[in-house]
Amino acid sequence: MEDPCEARGVLGIVGDKWALLVVRMLKDGPRRFTELKRSIDGISQRMLTVTLRDLERDGILTRTVHAVMPPHVSYELTSMGRTLREATAPLLEWSIEHLPLIAAARAEYDDR
Amino acid sequence: MEDPCEARGVLGIVGDKWALLVVRMLKDGPRRFTELKRSIDGISQRMLTVTLRDLERDGILTRTVHAVMPPHVSYELTSMGRTLREATAPLLEWSIEHLPLIAAARAEYDDR
Repeated sequence: MEDPCEARGVLGIVGDKWALLVVRMLKDGPRRFTELKRSIDGISQRMLTVTLRDLERDGILTRTVHAVMPPHVSYELTSMGRTLREATAPLLEWSIEHLPLIAAARAEYDDR
Repeated sequence: MEDPCEARGVLGIVGDKWALLVVRMLKDGPRRFTELKRSIDGISQRMLTVTLRDLERDGILTRTVHAVMPPHVSYELTSMGRTLREATAPLLEWSIEHLPLIAAARAEYDDR
């Protein structure tokens, strides 16, 4: 494909750092809202809510309300969400691996 | 790695839809600003300028000013940028491949 403009709408959701991190956090099974909030450093309540709703709308995850006491909500990847997780893994690994090189490049740029 | 918070700063740059599209557009060699602007549907002049500067700062691409008449500026992936391009390819391919499924999921969600 030479023209990625159709993909742009999709990337607006899945090519978002918070979405990438949420999808990664769900790789080992369902998680509660509070668990996600705690494990994704720096995400606000509002941003997590919006990210989860967008990913649910796109069929990446399901939201389940547990009517127990106390009631809680959990999120789980769909089968499509699991394929997305696989597709995002190389980008996450790249980011971790290149952190020092990027930090060095930034320092050099800022010193100019 | 269980804690991706360090990677968050990097993802803020490379996990951005415009950055993903710019990196993709440079895969076959250097491109001028005007070529990038034309080939990335919907990107504003300002957003392209900011995205290119962030990617240059992070060592993903180089910016070259050509002092000819008329003068122009071109952008080219660094060797680190080329490895980023490889890491983002699965996510872009996933996005294209799953467009119809995502559109269907959105329609179903919005009909609830």
